[in-house]
Parts: sequence; structure tokens; C-alpha cells
Amino acid sequence: MALTLEERFREVEDRLEIYNLIASHPPSADTGSGEYTRTVWTEDGTFDRGAQFPRPTGRDQIAAGSSNPEHRRALEQGIAHVSGHPYVRVTGDTAFAISYLQILVPDRVGPIFDVPNHGASGGFHIHRVSANRWDFVRTEEGWKIKSRTLRPLDGTPEAREILKGALVG
Amino acid sequence: MALTLEERFREVEDRLEIYNLIASHPPSADTGSGEYTRTVWTEDGTFDRGAQFPRPTGRDQIAAGSSNPEHRRALEQGIAHVSGHPYVRVTGDTAFAISYLQILVPDRVGPIFDVPNHGASGGFHIHRVSANRWDFVRTEEGWKIKSRTLRPLDGTPEAREILKGALVG
Amino acid sequence: MALTLEERFREVEDRLEIYNLIASHPPSADTGSGEYTRTVWTEDGTFDRGAQFPRPTGRDQIAAGSSNPEHRRALEQGIAHVSGHPYVRVTGDTAFAISYLQILVPDRVGPIFDVPNHGASGGFHIHRVSANRWDFVRTEEGWKIKSRTLRPLDGTPEAREILKGALVG
Repeated sequence: MALTLEERFREVEDRLEIYNLIASHPPSADTGSGEYTRTVWTEDGTFDRGAQFPRPTGRDQIAAGSSNPEHRRALEQGIAHVSGHPYVRVTGDTAFAISYLQILVPDRVGPIFDVPNHGASGGFHIHRVSANRWDFVRTEEGWKIKSRTLRPLDGTPEAREILKGALVG
Repeated sequence: MALTLEERFREVEDRLEIYNLIASHPPSADTGSGEYTRTVWTEDGTFDRGAQFPRPTGRDQIAAGSSNPEHRRALEQGIAHVSGHPYVRVTGDTAFAISYLQILVPDRVGPIFDVPNHGASGGFHIHRVSANRWDFVRTEEGWKIKSRTLRPLDGTPEAREILKGALVG
Repeated sequence: MALTLEERFREVEDRLEIYNLIASHPPSADTGSGEYTRTVWTEDGTFDRGAQFPRPTGRDQIAAGSSNPEHRRALEQGIAHVSGHPYVRVTGDTAFAISYLQILVPDRVGPIFDVPNHGASGGFHIHRVSANRWDFVRTEEGWKIKSRTLRPLDGTPEAREILKGALVG
């Protein structure tokens, strides 16, 4: 069933709104803005980083992750979440995105991240690269994140399963 | 000659469709999805990575690259293609894009990629960075890739020639 | 006050035009195209990279930065500016964006960048990562950059202040 021009136009605006939602994530992570994080998740949202990490449920728990001492220490040492160009698909009142995320840290930062210290240069190294799937829903207050799942691209199959979501045509 | 509102709107939708085509490339590369690759190229598409690499012609040859043993081994060891924010221009039934592409591999992965092994951390290093030019055409089955040319940004002039395509205003 | 459909549509086109402006920056930097740089800044534009760098004012001074000998040498040794997925917000005749920018250089390139030389591989390392704020204005010749401010994400608070601009909802 073909969409009306009005519906097509709304889909375009939705797409752009979701582009901004994804683009806001690295700034929220790199500033530790729990308050902002609360506003962009649904009340029952879920954030799944794999079995070795806690799996917060609900925007309050997810936002609380921003204020833990380890995260604060990372912010003070220097950290940058960098999002690649995301794949985004909107279907009515739901949408999803597949994106790559790099976490970069200054070379001078050593053992806390369990990465080699490449010396006292002004450079950065790549702490982690992950495949991310985001599911969004339209609410009365705009688009919100309903769930996010990420896995490191380390050769294990889970990350590849996430990436296949971008190959649906 | 000014475009009609309808034509302007179609150009916006085209632009967004091409954004998704570019965003699907890293997932298709990192999952080795030859089947998907076949669907997004024209039948006579060309893929040019420079004189030292084979230059496949046609979507069958291009898709076959996904299933070679070296590429499979890379997927199992961990690999991430990450696309920067692309420049895209649509003109009627053709379009082109200029994009940067990073290839990242886990630090623990050594000689196969001919890069230094930075230790057994969970980090990644940058195997290669390239400038990419994509040419697209509108077909009855949607936008397809007609040609893609990439060159490493290693100081040789070829990559800079590709990048100049994004400076046409 | 709700926007008309015409105004909403123009905002979509503005957004896409600004996406391209941001996407053209790395190609202009990596080709040293002062001529292009002149065309995308306002006459009184300002470019602020922090206290330790010169702060050019006006598009002529900003464009002149592309042709200095140190920058030329970097181009010949290999350099890649890579933009992450940007946050962009348009409001009438002004707009702003928040973006992450990586500067990558070949591993073989040593002391000029004051970074460790990771060996003679074909790989790259990250010379710098910065938070960028761009302010744009609509002019009779299209959208132009009025100011750009960047700070390295090295743990100092300035970069985090820039990033907060993407959390305005």
C-alpha cells in the first residue's frame, strides 16, 4: 500500500530526528549526562552490552550508569565515543538503526582501560569497536530509545548478527 | 531551471536512500554477505581499489570477493569497516558520494594484516584508511552502485583526486 | 507556533545541505583546498582551535591556513580527517552542528606529528580527536560557516562544554 505524500514527508522528518538522537549519544556519554539520557529512553528501555556487563532496565537504571565513579574517571582522563555513519529505517511508529561505535582514549592513559600505553604523545588509541542495534518508538514526547544492544567486533558471531539488520534492503 | 516541489521532495528521499546504501556497506563487508552485495550493484558495476588489487567487473565478480578464504579468516579474527559521514549529491537519476572508510582490526591480530601487534589488549588498530568515490544510478529496483573507486590516504595523489569530488559546491 | 508544510520542507533541505557542508570539510582539509574553503565561510567567520593555535578571522585568513608549508608536508606524507556522524539543528536562518573529528596519519610518519612510529606497516594511528561546534547562517549564496570552535577530547573541560550543545533536545 503506497504512502501518501504527507506520510512520506513525515517519514523523512522521522529519519532526521533519529539521526540526531544517534548523534547525541556520544556527547551524552562523553559528558556523563545522566539527566539527558533519562529523556531519550522509554521508561522500560533495555540496554544490553553482553553477558559480562550489567544489563540495566528502565531509563533510571540506564541513566545511573553515567554517574558511576569509573565512568567519571574516564571522562577526566579523556574519552571519545565516535559514531560511524548509521543505517536507519523508519516504519510507521517504530524505527531501528545499526551503527558502529568507536571508543577512543588518549595514548597517555594506561592500565585503567587495559590497553597498551603508546607513549606520552598527544595521540589516541582505539579502546573498543562495537556493532550497535537501536530500536526506537514514537511517543507523545517524540522518538525514544526502546532498546539498544551492542557487541564488540572481535570475531565472535554476536556482532555479525547485529550487523545483518542493516542488510534488509 | 527550478525543480518542482515534487522533484525536490524526491531528491530528499533519494538522498536518504543513498545514505542507507552507504551505511549498509560496512555491515555487508563485516558479515561477508555476498548475497546482499549482489543486490546493491548494477549488473555491469566496477570496483577499483588500485593497480595492486584485482578489479572485479559485474556484481557477480564483486559479490564473489566476499567469500574468499582470506576474507572469511578476517571475519573470524575480527574486523570492522567504519564509514565516516559521507558527502552525497543527487542529480536526477544519478548520484555520487565521497566517503572515508577506516578498516579496524583487533590488536591481538598480527601478521595476516601486516600490521604491528600492539599486545593482547581488547583494543583495535587502524589497518587502513581510504578515500572512496561511489557512483549510483536509479533503476526500477531502486538505487544501485554503478562504480566504486577507493585509494588509501597515504600521501599519494590518487586519494586526493577522489576527495576533490566533494568540493563541487 | 507551528511551521507550515513549506517551512518544514525547507528545514529538511537545509539540514541536508548542512550535512554536505560538514562532509566537505575533511576533503577540503586533506587536499589543502584554500579556494574551496573561502567559498564556504562568511566574510567575518572565526575559527578557534584553542589558546595554543592562531585564531584566524575572516575567510581569507582561514583559507590561508590551507597553504602553509607544514600543512602541505602533512598532505604529502598522508593525512585523513574523518568526521563522525554529526548532530545538526536548523532554526530558521541559522543552524549549528556538533561533531567529532579524528585526524589520522600513516604509522610510518614519525616525529613531525609528535606521535610514536608504530613501524613500517600500512596502518594508521590517531593523531588527535576533537569536539567541534559549527555555527551556520543562511546567505544569498546558500549556507555558510560563521564560526567553528574545536577542542581536543583530552579530559579538559572545554571539549565537554562543546559536546553539551548536542543535548538540547
